[in-house]
Amino acid sequence: MPDSLISRTDSAYSYQLLIKQLLYAPLANNPEQEIVYRDQWRGNYLTLRERICRLANALTRLGVKAGDTVAVMDYDSHRYLECFFAVPMLGAVLHTINVRLSPEQILYTIDHAEDDILLINSDFLPILDQIKGRIDTLKGYVLLNDEAQSPHSSIPIAGEYEELLAESDTHFEFPDFDENTRATTFYTTGTTGLPKGVYFSHRQLVLHTLGVVTALATPLSQGRLHRQDVYMPITPMFHVHAWGLPYAATLMGLKQVYPGRYVPDHLLELIDREQVTFSHCVPTILHMLLKSPLAEKIDLSRWKVIIGGAGLSKALCLEAMRKGIDIFTGYGMSETCPILTLAHLTPEMFDLSVEEQAVIRCKTGVPLPLVQLRVVNEQGGDVPHDGRSSGEIVVRTPWLTQGYLKDHRASEKLWDGGWLHTSDVANVDGRGYVKITDRTKDVIKIGGEWISTLELEDIIAHCPAVAEVAVIGQPDDRWGERPLALVVRREEGEEKAAEKGILNFVREYTEKGMISKQVVLLKVRFVEAIDKTSVGKVNKVALREKYL
Amino acid sequence: MPDSLISRTDSAYSYQLLIKQLLYAPLANNPEQEIVYRDQWRGNYLTLRERICRLANALTRLGVKAGDTVAVMDYDSHRYLECFFAVPMLGAVLHTINVRLSPEQILYTIDHAEDDILLINSDFLPILDQIKGRIDTLKGYVLLNDEAQSPHSSIPIAGEYEELLAESDTHFEFPDFDENTRATTFYTTGTTGLPKGVYFSHRQLVLHTLGVVTALATPLSQGRLHRQDVYMPITPMFHVHAWGLPYAATLMGLKQVYPGRYVPDHLLELIDREQVTFSHCVPTILHMLLKSPLAEKIDLSRWKVIIGGAGLSKALCLEAMRKGIDIFTGYGMSETCPILTLAHLTPEMFDLSVEEQAVIRCKTGVPLPLVQLRVVNEQGGDVPHDGRSSGEIVVRTPWLTQGYLKDHRASEKLWDGGWLHTSDVANVDGRGYVKITDRTKDVIKIGGEWISTLELEDIIAHCPAVAEVAVIGQPDDRWGERPLALVVRREEGEEKAAEKGILNFVREYTEKGMISKQVVLLKVRFVEAIDKTSVGKVNKVALREKYL
Repeated sequence: MPDSLISRTDSAYSYQLLIKQLLYAPLANNPEQEIVYRDQWRGNYLTLRERICRLANALTRLGVKAGDTVAVMDYDSHRYLECFFAVPMLGAVLHTINVRLSPEQILYTIDHAEDDILLINSDFLPILDQIKGRIDTLKGYVLLNDEAQSPHSSIPIAGEYEELLAESDTHFEFPDFDENTRATTFYTTGTTGLPKGVYFSHRQLVLHTLGVVTALATPLSQGRLHRQDVYMPITPMFHVHAWGLPYAATLMGLKQVYPGRYVPDHLLELIDREQVTFSHCVPTILHMLLKSPLAEKIDLSRWKVIIGGAGLSKALCLEAMRKGIDIFTGYGMSETCPILTLAHLTPEMFDLSVEEQAVIRCKTGVPLPLVQLRVVNEQGGDVPHDGRSSGEIVVRTPWLTQGYLKDHRASEKLWDGGWLHTSDVANVDGRGYVKITDRTKDVIKIGGEWISTLELEDIIAHCPAVAEVAVIGQPDDRWGERPLALVVRREEGEEKAAEKGILNFVREYTEKGMISKQVVLLKVRFVEAIDKTSVGKVNKVALREKYL
Repeated sequence: MPDSLISRTDSAYSYQLLIKQLLYAPLANNPEQEIVYRDQWRGNYLTLRERICRLANALTRLGVKAGDTVAVMDYDSHRYLECFFAVPMLGAVLHTINVRLSPEQILYTIDHAEDDILLINSDFLPILDQIKGRIDTLKGYVLLNDEAQSPHSSIPIAGEYEELLAESDTHFEFPDFDENTRATTFYTTGTTGLPKGVYFSHRQLVLHTLGVVTALATPLSQGRLHRQDVYMPITPMFHVHAWGLPYAATLMGLKQVYPGRYVPDHLLELIDREQVTFSHCVPTILHMLLKSPLAEKIDLSRWKVIIGGAGLSKALCLEAMRKGIDIFTGYGMSETCPILTLAHLTPEMFDLSVEEQAVIRCKTGVPLPLVQLRVVNEQGGDVPHDGRSSGEIVVRTPWLTQGYLKDHRASEKLWDGGWLHTSDVANVDGRGYVKITDRTKDVIKIGGEWISTLELEDIIAHCPAVAEVAVIGQPDDRWGERPLALVVRREEGEEKAAEKGILNFVREYTEKGMISKQVVLLKVRFVEAIDKTSVGKVNKVALREKYL
């Protein structure tokens, strides 16, 4: 239907959705709102704009041009926020390197993404020292340094970030270009195989920002983000744009706080001192924060926290709620920019008991605007929305990676049949709330019946003796698989009695019909610690290798 | 930079921004929320989807195909909402006819837009009777009828809306197509010349919806739209998509109330009965509502109202505030989809006096996200943001008409230099609030000095004896122009004394330096009524013709 496309008069401005436009609103409405980095730096949106321009000039002087790739290895900082804008606004690609990968994996991603320039925090120079001489693509290094003196390193540094900015002009005319220009790239931290690169365009990031703000700002009260909130990420900025929230916070002109390296007591101090009201993190970090003695001393009752990256257990949810924290689940993955769903409560749900509210807060949530989310069975049909029937989550939204970088086969598998396959198994209840029960590859099949390891983990986590738990499937001749619980205990003690205690605890749930009877086949093994991936998720592949 | 565009793997879904996607969120999250039409019809989002499908089937049976134009002449109704979706979702164009135009003008717009099918409320058949036989393009008529019996008319009706829907299937597979496909068309109700057609694509309407929700949902409290609000338009749906709010309300899954013809007491009854909390209207309608005795009897203290289409006077603003109404200004025009700015208060401003708050609520406002708004002098340079220096508002946003339909010269003039020219003269204060002082063509030049007729009107409106006022410029040999105030009085009485009262009233403001001394040249003329355009704006062109 070419003749029904709108015609554009010659002089009309063709408005491409570009990251630079996210800055218009805060600069017009709230330019003096604060942006804070630890106790080291305070600026505002005017400063942000000025430093983005300086950075663009500095990078241009280092030879960066449209289409080049600029990599960053830093903690969460105002500098990182500046890179979130300046690099894509130049038409270049921002590669947010996962600093928790092994040096060999980091080398692989630098090579694979064909990075041209690397901005690196002095703390990470030792990683670079291990792989130097084998990096083919990098043409320059910029040092990010919080210390007064320069670190010792054999890396040929082109300049220190603040010095380069100080030398650079405060104005830069950012060009217009196609909104489908690649803006960011990073690598999925899968538990098997080589890291896979995902990538997002300016258009995708702008639309993700609008979708996220629309979903977070519209609820009446619970889990609501508004213009007076103070935002601090506790999911690394290298990890799926810190869930895109730095872009959303900027569009809304919020006060933003960047905490540097994640040290629990330092995070708590920042929450207290800067009056942080909105964050997001994985369950592990929240657990660490809550068990700090400092958490008892500060008021967390104005703090709203989205939990993602791993399932939120009811036990942790209730513990956070007891502290007054407005906690709820968000869901997404590297391939999805990331946010797909949020588990907000509706106002009527506040009449429910705290326990019942926690169940909803721990759900995966309801889809964001523009997200077309289906839970499908193996034939591709939608499962009934009965809270029980499960299938794989497949999605279409305007902000999904359109493939894996230079990996046609994996790209086609991801997008099989025109839907992005999440590999997450879920059900949908009558109110439309999605609940992930497991990853397709992690599900346990006992005697022909699928058992959710997440559900079983959640039950065991409630057992008073248990500090942490992960469940994997142990091959079994008779049953196919049996559940094996790897348990970190709160206190040392006799193992046999402790195991019996856990088994009895679980039996209460099976007897009440709250989980399949098959789980009485549970075995328990006590371990020192549970292996995690670089982003803090339980690494079930590693656990299986180690314990099976 | 073609090589830096993101690559899309063969199977990936190319997500075009289409109006149908606005329905995903309410259907997933809140399908049983109500949609109400007067006391005649109640449905919900499931019904809405079903009726959209039925309408699409009915229109297809009438021969409507992608690229065709479907025109509507109706009051604000659930049927109109269904057309807002079904027609563009078919790939056809929705022409929202301004029913307040003269029959000759309506004929002109039907011909000019090349309408194929017309859906017409029985109330408007007499208009059609006046122009029938001269309509070349229309191939079919669908009747919209609230009455039990069919009206008498010689128009060849293909069917009645409800009957056609009842005969149609409840499923329709809406196709994907290019997001730049034209979705809507309507005509500017200018006060001079022939109506000019503007047009908007699916992409533009989706982005406008996201921009509007983002701007309305994010404030802490004042003027905030949230998921528990109940929405009722009081700006006609034919007028710039009722400011796009029906799309925004649908995306958010709000309860929606459609009032039919605007009868003040009926509107008040609906606000009361359906617990309406969010509306938008022109000052004239609000004035009519507030002066109804019924307004004294019902609680308006939960009602949030955006005022647009004409400047909000401080007097009307204060009157509304006294009733507890959360009133504030929105700004836009037919060419801009429409919303560009909103005059929200920041939380600190609640410390100001009521009078001072009213001044801000009457400002034009701050730009929405993604809106690049400049106030420029005749050389195209930005004026200082000092609240005094004035210039023309020019804009770039993703939701501006890309021209006037089949009018190259006017299109190029509108987009001169790559910015959409609003012809509105404004200043910007130090906090970024824009304030329109006049239309470029309506400004009065007294002794070489520009005077804002809006400011002068606002002062005169505060005079107790004045019910309504419009100021125009009267040619004057000595001064160039002198201000002439056309005044509708509250009570009859001796004209000479009344004029003196007004002149003395204005003099107090000039003596305090609140407006230029030049306005003491004011003349007053008492009139029965002030001429309005079809959308309720003061028609200064008509006033000049009549009184000069």
